[in-house]
Amino acid sequence: MKPFMDQDFLLHNKTAVELYRRYAADQPIFDYHCHLIPSQIAENKQFADLTEIWLGGDHYKWRMMRAIGIPEDLITGNADPYDKFLAWAKTMPAIVGNPLYHWSHLELQRYFDITEVLNPSSAKSIWEQANTKLADKSMSVAGILKKFNVFAVGTTDDPTDNLAVHCSINEGSSPIGEIATKVYPSFRPDKALLPQAKGFSDYIKRLGSSAAMSISCVDDVCVALAKRLEFFKQCGCKASDHGIPMVPYTIADDAKIETIFHKALEGVSLTSEEIDAYQTKVLLSIATEYAKQGIVMQLHLNSIRNLNPTMFDRLGPDTGFDATHDLPLSNRLAQFLGALEQRKAVSKTVLYSLNPKDYYVMATQMGCFQGDEVFGKFQLGSGWWFCDHKDGIEEQLKILANQSALGTFIGMLTDSRSFLSYPRHEYFRRILCNLLGSWAEDGEVPPDMELLGNIVRDISFRNALRYFV
Amino acid sequence: MKPFMDQDFLLHNKTAVELYRRYAADQPIFDYHCHLIPSQIAENKQFADLTEIWLGGDHYKWRMMRAIGIPEDLITGNADPYDKFLAWAKTMPAIVGNPLYHWSHLELQRYFDITEVLNPSSAKSIWEQANTKLADKSMSVAGILKKFNVFAVGTTDDPTDNLAVHCSINEGSSPIGEIATKVYPSFRPDKALLPQAKGFSDYIKRLGSSAAMSISCVDDVCVALAKRLEFFKQCGCKASDHGIPMVPYTIADDAKIETIFHKALEGVSLTSEEIDAYQTKVLLSIATEYAKQGIVMQLHLNSIRNLNPTMFDRLGPDTGFDATHDLPLSNRLAQFLGALEQRKAVSKTVLYSLNPKDYYVMATQMGCFQGDEVFGKFQLGSGWWFCDHKDGIEEQLKILANQSALGTFIGMLTDSRSFLSYPRHEYFRRILCNLLGSWAEDGEVPPDMELLGNIVRDISFRNALRYFV
Amino acid sequence: MKPFMDQDFLLHNKTAVELYRRYAADQPIFDYHCHLIPSQIAENKQFADLTEIWLGGDHYKWRMMRAIGIPEDLITGNADPYDKFLAWAKTMPAIVGNPLYHWSHLELQRYFDITEVLNPSSAKSIWEQANTKLADKSMSVAGILKKFNVFAVGTTDDPTDNLAVHCSINEGSSPIGEIATKVYPSFRPDKALLPQAKGFSDYIKRLGSSAAMSISCVDDVCVALAKRLEFFKQCGCKASDHGIPMVPYTIADDAKIETIFHKALEGVSLTSEEIDAYQTKVLLSIATEYAKQGIVMQLHLNSIRNLNPTMFDRLGPDTGFDATHDLPLSNRLAQFLGALEQRKAVSKTVLYSLNPKDYYVMATQMGCFQGDEVFGKFQLGSGWWFCDHKDGIEEQLKILANQSALGTFIGMLTDSRSFLSYPRHEYFRRILCNLLGSWAEDGEVPPDMELLGNIVRDISFRNALRYFV
Repeated sequence: MKPFMDQDFLLHNKTAVELYRRYAADQPIFDYHCHLIPSQIAENKQFADLTEIWLGGDHYKWRMMRAIGIPEDLITGNADPYDKFLAWAKTMPAIVGNPLYHWSHLELQRYFDITEVLNPSSAKSIWEQANTKLADKSMSVAGILKKFNVFAVGTTDDPTDNLAVHCSINEGSSPIGEIATKVYPSFRPDKALLPQAKGFSDYIKRLGSSAAMSISCVDDVCVALAKRLEFFKQCGCKASDHGIPMVPYTIADDAKIETIFHKALEGVSLTSEEIDAYQTKVLLSIATEYAKQGIVMQLHLNSIRNLNPTMFDRLGPDTGFDATHDLPLSNRLAQFLGALEQRKAVSKTVLYSLNPKDYYVMATQMGCFQGDEVFGKFQLGSGWWFCDHKDGIEEQLKILANQSALGTFIGMLTDSRSFLSYPRHEYFRRILCNLLGSWAEDGEVPPDMELLGNIVRDISFRNALRYFV
Repeated sequence: MKPFMDQDFLLHNKTAVELYRRYAADQPIFDYHCHLIPSQIAENKQFADLTEIWLGGDHYKWRMMRAIGIPEDLITGNADPYDKFLAWAKTMPAIVGNPLYHWSHLELQRYFDITEVLNPSSAKSIWEQANTKLADKSMSVAGILKKFNVFAVGTTDDPTDNLAVHCSINEGSSPIGEIATKVYPSFRPDKALLPQAKGFSDYIKRLGSSAAMSISCVDDVCVALAKRLEFFKQCGCKASDHGIPMVPYTIADDAKIETIFHKALEGVSLTSEEIDAYQTKVLLSIATEYAKQGIVMQLHLNSIRNLNPTMFDRLGPDTGFDATHDLPLSNRLAQFLGALEQRKAVSKTVLYSLNPKDYYVMATQMGCFQGDEVFGKFQLGSGWWFCDHKDGIEEQLKILANQSALGTFIGMLTDSRSFLSYPRHEYFRRILCNLLGSWAEDGEVPPDMELLGNIVRDISFRNALRYFV
Repeated sequence: MKPFMDQDFLLHNKTAVELYRRYAADQPIFDYHCHLIPSQIAENKQFADLTEIWLGGDHYKWRMMRAIGIPEDLITGNADPYDKFLAWAKTMPAIVGNPLYHWSHLELQRYFDITEVLNPSSAKSIWEQANTKLADKSMSVAGILKKFNVFAVGTTDDPTDNLAVHCSINEGSSPIGEIATKVYPSFRPDKALLPQAKGFSDYIKRLGSSAAMSISCVDDVCVALAKRLEFFKQCGCKASDHGIPMVPYTIADDAKIETIFHKALEGVSLTSEEIDAYQTKVLLSIATEYAKQGIVMQLHLNSIRNLNPTMFDRLGPDTGFDATHDLPLSNRLAQFLGALEQRKAVSKTVLYSLNPKDYYVMATQMGCFQGDEVFGKFQLGSGWWFCDHKDGIEEQLKILANQSALGTFIGMLTDSRSFLSYPRHEYFRRILCNLLGSWAEDGEVPPDMELLGNIVRDISFRNALRYFV
């Protein structure tokens, strides 16, 4: 029996232990896709208590609390911070086997040196120990980024953002001062691609003014996005990101798309085919810019959002009411990538899905667009959101290994809003080392520590560095 | 090498063995969803021979016999009972790795104390031993229910059923006399939801008279169902059940649905959109009643029935000619649950699918509707039918654990027509204990037998008790 | 730690080792579905160097090379053979975990007695050793077929093929002389089923002349195919094969289908519904012939082809630009098989999918059409193409075992264009033995070597023999 989450956590054989200790543990973190708030970095935020930093915006935890019947007041309401923390402690014993059970304990261990198991009995003591630590400078944002050797983070930003905060951080002129961590903006133009969303017309105006032009047609939208992308690139942007249920692919003539666009500006409702036609034109256009400007394209597919109408009215988006979608992928992805290929405009691309049923399609389709002398031009993104757990990470790694060149993989990202999420890189690396180690122990790969150690270092950090920078 | 199916069957580590022996083995059985025939309980049926009780209605076994080419006469025909049994014995060696291989031997062990491996050589001896036992009182229905410590069974009943048999059993006035096992009816209104089925018009009349009213419009259907549900509830009903290929979601105005209904009564054929519109209205209505009356809603999705037209003509339904369907789920389920949420009418709900591709969608969507201070309000149902095997149970447990709170799970049900199926609860519990035990041995959960033992007891029995009663 | 790929490769327990050595290793190979070029057999081809035999037509390897950024000239271009080989050697370290990593080393071991790990350092030495061996008679096609104890191969042939090469081989009158291996043609009428493909009209003419008739209507197409099938059968054909994205099922009246056919002949573009209607009629007709003439029907579903338009223009089909598709299967397969059943025309059938999401649907639907006193009339085909790896083989075996009678399985096929692929049978058998062995060690099947050994022999060879011959 192995002790609970000790130094060899998730490492079930000697080779795995050696790979992790010698090759993975000391690698920097390139967290190329996350949702950290840049201003919290700039101001070098210090957190009030464990509830603020741990439960404040973490809808993963909220969902678990709802699942065991915790009243909403103790989740997102105005209850006392300690009572909220206690509610989380009560939730823990019921979620054995959930990644949050591991993440929570990893975070207690790595940030707070607490090795106790969190449950209602230990809650009080853990609350006090953690809060004491939180008051320390080492637990400021600067302290955390340094402690976890974070080489870079890629935030997620709207094209209209002026990126002043990013610039001030990277120039060392913000309150946090000079830090080793680079803070790269990422270009996420979802709002320009959702013509049916509330506020679309206002957004288009804002996009125009951010690009110092007025937008009166779809081509203007494309031009404005391209200009903002150029600006983003000057500010260090390496990647774009798209959170769309599915890759669009409906080809319509320009006049028709123009009509759709103007209907959208006037708030006239659109058919799903019209939306798709508009999205196809704009996404193909901006994707072409990615190829031209050397920006990585990230596609996050098959999510379905805001399912609970009552809770959406009450709490808004990103509060734990999203789910895995099951739209078909193959025809659309093939047509979309084929169209880019015909324009000679295939950028480096990372494909993510919230539904593991898409991994085979993604991993095999991407094999049809590799090349251009790039080491791993197309990537099957690491297990995302509801797929980000031990089983999901292993599934993604195995399908990737079976269908493509595992050695080119750019590895883990947190996708997180929280500064407490860096141990997820450790979690991922342990699973990776365990998989490679088990292959070696079983005689399925050569027992060649240089070969395997290089793969571990590449996937832990070096491939991402090469891919993005 | 472990002996074949001994006391530690499926328990591959010490913690698993301890969890099973100390916490699982002695728990009562709450078989909340099955297809037992209530009259067989009432009459305290005693079975003629192993062929009657084992092969009589078991289309799982029939499929395997067909797969190896056994003539149909030896399966569902008039062949001699022993010859049929021998045909099954001949099938066994070819189905190593199938759950029936395990179930059959578990049943021989637990009901008949037979530990021999079933094959053509052992068939004669097993036949004789088993038949001798079957003649004993301990193998009457009452004997079986007592032996397996069956706290309750939930049968599957039509809304027009007068439930007289259930009442007589629960009052102790039937031939079986007073038994400790509760026999709860379940409300399964499929016939009211299939307007295109033969006999729909007659069924609607029958539904009307069972509810002491005449049905002349769709609203009447809804009222009649609500009244019957009330009656069912008075007779101990805890749960409803729906066997539909997919959750319906087509919104139409009432006039249109009325027209559809009257076309259906007259036997005019309907488009699939019309059927869906009718189903949407009626299912939303009855689901609202479930919420109001505190009845659990069970949805069994993605089955496709009666695929073989020749055999359907010859043998009718439920004879082994059904399969896993692959309809998309996400959009419809989200809309259906969202509509209920807007009516403030979300009952406790158990989601089952015959296609494991639906687990991610179900397990994440249900996370959007948890709450109301219920411990596990939404449940991902245990591996159903073609998913009810070791790999399927593990898959369901892992996805549930990763996406929700495993500790709230209501666990196993047999879904069976046979009184020989109770060892499937044992089978499930062994797999559950093995999973938890392997996590403990690997240091992934704390080695805390109270924590893990509680989860085992909860999932084996106590959660179902709390959920339904 | 087990040595890398030694004699016990993939065999992780004693029972597995014993099963493999005693029951699997010596079984002949029945490679019932492959893409070998019959003329290369007839001429007893001898290969120039390792690049020709290994990299010449192997688009699996080409994809991996593209994934790590090897320039196309070193893949399919005119680069020097050794430079191409070296490029492959450079690819190897990045594809640890890929089946090609295992296959490549297995092939080096079994054909060339080379146990070195292939990488850039060992490339030169391996190149020289292998090329020396290749010059030897034992590495001619005849030598290879003998060495691997190949009982039969099933090639893949167009209905218009005159099969002269097959006849000459089987009569012993070709340059290769008398060989023990049978070379069965397979009937693959894809071109008659793709009315929208370029050259359809010419093909129909060619089909007519091959059947000594002129084709002026769809019924003529069906008659011509039936006649060619009869001829194929006389030449030893045991099986047909269909590479179609999805089973068609659109019922239209004959007049309409006639119109579609004539539009197709004139090159008028068709809707997808029209294509489907034509395919439905022709496929039902030829499938009926399969049943009548005792030919096995193979359906290879859910592939999507030629995704990269630029590379298709440059290199044509079968060059590594295909992928897994995700079309829904259940409704169409059920209707198609149901229609055949109503005609009493269900032949032996093997269902393959390039998308593992189809395994549950296939394995359960096929259970609805088993019977006719055939041992395993319907087969879930072994992991195909992108599913042909350790994880994929295990997944297929487990789903098959859970849903059907594993003991009836006809086992492995290479589906390969290369004479170096026979070790894939060994690879499969090792995985099979390991699975059965692990069940035995865990007490999940009886430790009965005769029972398990028979299953191993059956699946390795004897079932295929019984099924096809």
